Amino acid sequence: MDKKDSVTIVAFSGDLDKLLAAFIIATGAAASGKQVNMFFTFWGLKLLQQTKSKPKGLNLIQKMFTFMVKPGTEKRSISKMNMLGMGTMMLKKLMKRSKVPSLAEMIAISKALGVKFTACTTSMGVMGISKDSLIPEVDNIAGVASFLADAEKSSVTLFI
Amino acid sequence: MDKKDSVTIVAFSGDLDKLLAAFIIATGAAASGKQVNMFFTFWGLKLLQQTKSKPKGLNLIQKMFTFMVKPGTEKRSISKMNMLGMGTMMLKKLMKRSKVPSLAEMIAISKALGVKFTACTTSMGVMGISKDSLIPEVDNIAGVASFLADAEKSSVTLFI
Amino acid sequence: MDKKDSVTIVAFSGDLDKLLAAFIIATGAAASGKQVNMFFTFWGLKLLQQTKSKPKGLNLIQKMFTFMVKPGTEKRSISKMNMLGMGTMMLKKLMKRSKVPSLAEMIAISKALGVKFTACTTSMGVMGISKDSLIPEVDNIAGVASFLADAEKSSVTLFI
Repeated sequence: MDKKDSVTIVAFSGDLDKLLAAFIIATGAAASGKQVNMFFTFWGLKLLQQTKSKPKGLNLIQKMFTFMVKPGTEKRSISKMNMLGMGTMMLKKLMKRSKVPSLAEMIAISKALGVKFTACTTSMGVMGISKDSLIPEVDNIAGVASFLADAEKSSVTLFI
Repeated sequence: MDKKDSVTIVAFSGDLDKLLAAFIIATGAAASGKQVNMFFTFWGLKLLQQTKSKPKGLNLIQKMFTFMVKPGTEKRSISKMNMLGMGTMMLKKLMKRSKVPSLAEMIAISKALGVKFTACTTSMGVMGISKDSLIPEVDNIAGVASFLADAEKSSVTLFI
Repeated sequence: MDKKDSVTIVAFSGDLDKLLAAFIIATGAAASGKQVNMFFTFWGLKLLQQTKSKPKGLNLIQKMFTFMVKPGTEKRSISKMNMLGMGTMMLKKLMKRSKVPSLAEMIAISKALGVKFTACTTSMGVMGISKDSLIPEVDNIAGVASFLADAEKSSVTLFI
């Protein structure tokens, strides 16, 4: 594949607004025929975690961390002006009125367009996120070497 | 234009410190003869909004959003240690002492050096920012496809 | 050096989680034989400042700024869920259990692998950080032109 035709994004943030930006770029690029790779790490990984998973074998701190940062598409809040959730609720309403897809819809569109989702093994280990607690849309579980291999073949690399 | 000669920046953040970093990179690159493209989206768009604009036809939530996040160069605050504005005031004073241009000056310098400003249509729609409420320095109003076309021709791509 | 073989990272953030991501990418790339350049600016510069330095000749605001943002590897806190330091302490414990190196270890590993550390002159001037208050691991003190020269030769450029 030509270098011109790839985009690689690190989805580090778990914030609604930043994830939205990542997906708008990812789906836009994929829709125009580019290979798009999204590498989900740290807070961004929480997006890919199933909401009903009951993780086992976590140590106390992992349990607390899991409790503090809720998994899934619905629990993402905005990076600024959240105001106990009011800002997030407002943004979700504005998105709907402008027909901007929700995060759950963005995931579905991304998969339909062939965007590759990689979950970062290092973050999974630190946070106690097991493979079977991830949503099935995840294509790949890998470390930084996988990100770098994708990134060096890409004309656009972004850390979001 | 040679790929070596372009830099494309997504200015997503509306924070003074991050916008400053974006403009230092943009003006530095433009001063050395590179084509520089800045794509303003989400919070970053507020920088390009006229301070005296009285937006019409906004729905209630857009009005609240507009009220919460003030437009223009003077209302940007720092991403950390803002402390009710004291941190921002301190940074502005330190910038002045070090002869670092203000955001308003950065915009003027960028335009003099030929930096291209694009305002993101999707964000404008969501937030209720109309074309005529933007400052005249905006060259282009476009979506993610325009960003991707610039980015794939650039040797440096950054999300700030 | 081949363009494929370089990675250039702006380390703007002073947050533990973001610095960790920057170093995991940097050391991963360097371990696989790539030239890696890290350009430390703004909050990120605080990582490279010696903890025992007693800066002289600062103006009042620089003194306040220095007091507010502590220097060194141990004083970095996480970007979200810090909760007066508890979140940071939890992440540090989780890192240790997963055998993820600390920031101090990351710096040592980076240097052993030949990662180049540049401290941003503009930020140093603004914040009142003198050359002799930086840790000896800093290779280079330079401005945005130096970053751009590294970045345009790199296949991967990230702003973290």
